[in-house]
Amino acid sequence: MINNSIKKINFNNKFDKISKYWSPKIIAELNNYQFKLAKFKGDFIRHHHPETDEAFIVIEGEICIEFDNKTEIIKSGEMIVVPKGVPHKPYSKKEAKVLIIEPRGVVNTGNISNELTLSSHNWI
Amino acid sequence: MINNSIKKINFNNKFDKISKYWSPKIIAELNNYQFKLAKFKGDFIRHHHPETDEAFIVIEGEICIEFDNKTEIIKSGEMIVVPKGVPHKPYSKKEAKVLIIEPRGVVNTGNISNELTLSSHNWI
Repeated sequence: MINNSIKKINFNNKFDKISKYWSPKIIAELNNYQFKLAKFKGDFIRHHHPETDEAFIVIEGEICIEFDNKTEIIKSGEMIVVPKGVPHKPYSKKEAKVLIIEPRGVVNTGNISNELTLSSHNWI
Repeated sequence: MINNSIKKINFNNKFDKISKYWSPKIIAELNNYQFKLAKFKGDFIRHHHPETDEAFIVIEGEICIEFDNKTEIIKSGEMIVVPKGVPHKPYSKKEAKVLIIEPRGVVNTGNISNELTLSSHNWI
């Protein structure tokens, strides 16, 4: 890789390009892992990822992740790792801005396929 | 994994436990990748990682990463991925707080071994 292609990424500049909720966009790759930005608002579906852990870092606002026996509230400046296979339902009352880190090729709705499922993730 | 062990992580609470500069501490794992927090101040050494890319997310303050042909300044709310094998020298005039993401087992000084090299990384 040529050094000229190495550039810092500003989260807010990228978030300005995202209009749709629950639609993660790729901003960077680290080996075979991807960094994706997403805006959360309202309810996502309960799902799990059979093959991988998933990390959420909250950049602005706060999100809730409902597990079987508790709900974690994650705010700006906080992160959580949801382990492989653990059912979780993300939701957010107000708009929140989130950085997601997971391996390339992960389906956003995990084991569930519905109208929220994205067939592919675009770069911004 | 039991759901009770799934807990959010607050970056500032963790940074309060770090006193030494250039000494990343592990806060979370995602599959075989690790999230590490570090305080930067002053000069690190020019090095490269022959086997992996490395991601830096600035949580507070700003850092500089000097490459062969340019220097990138990364501020709070920004990130950069340094590709595998690319020589880079991190430095920071003032204290900065940084989240590093890389595979488990990466040596902090990459191909260089000197007094800054950590033989292991501790959890906080």
